[in-house]
Amino acid sequence: MVRAVETYVAAFDAGDPDMVVGLFAPDATVEDPVGTPPHVGHAAIRTFYANSMKTGAKLKLEGPVRVAVDTAAFAFHVTFADPNMRVDVIDLFRFGDDGKVVSMKAFFGPTNMIGFGRPADA
Amino acid sequence: MVRAVETYVAAFDAGDPDMVVGLFAPDATVEDPVGTPPHVGHAAIRTFYANSMKTGAKLKLEGPVRVAVDTAAFAFHVTFADPNMRVDVIDLFRFGDDGKVVSMKAFFGPTNMIGFGRPADA
Repeated sequence: MVRAVETYVAAFDAGDPDMVVGLFAPDATVEDPVGTPPHVGHAAIRTFYANSMKTGAKLKLEGPVRVAVDTAAFAFHVTFADPNMRVDVIDLFRFGDDGKVVSMKAFFGPTNMIGFGRPADA
Repeated sequence: MVRAVETYVAAFDAGDPDMVVGLFAPDATVEDPVGTPPHVGHAAIRTFYANSMKTGAKLKLEGPVRVAVDTAAFAFHVTFADPNMRVDVIDLFRFGDDGKVVSMKAFFGPTNMIGFGRPADA
């Protein structure tokens, strides 16, 4: 699970949506951020990540990946070409028996988005 | 929600189980760590925290609290009197409309427990 998270970050930062999608089960769900409609299945997940990568976002892990039973939890922040922009996120990856991610949830909100003209800037 | 998390950490580190319990709804559940039977309701939650505090554990927040809709996610580590012991944890607090925590889940496992003679030491 730790290796899958590290591969996820490396693939995202390399701009490789296919490598990211390969970590997910075919019917996986991606809810990013929590509270928005989930992306379901490989095609939707690939589109979501390809678009995310186009923003120039890069992920920086913070501290060790926490692993509880079938779930990995990890803190990271997202940087952009504009050094004044930053998003602080905690992700949960739930894994199936075959080691593929079946559910991804990203926890962040307006207060975690710095430099976007949102409440965190007030 | 951020204030509740900060109060939680301060109350835990002050060894005040009643202040911790006051953050929870009467029928709240505490699953710590995820994968173990939950503590349900104020009495069980108070006993759990009172015992946790007796270990001398102290909580150190890492980075900002992430807030998504009704849920706060935060990374922290736990220190003990023995400086060689440490546990890395991510908690999720889900809040009800009245601002009380209705569900707490703590994500960590053997690989996140340093100095306990567990796999992380191997």
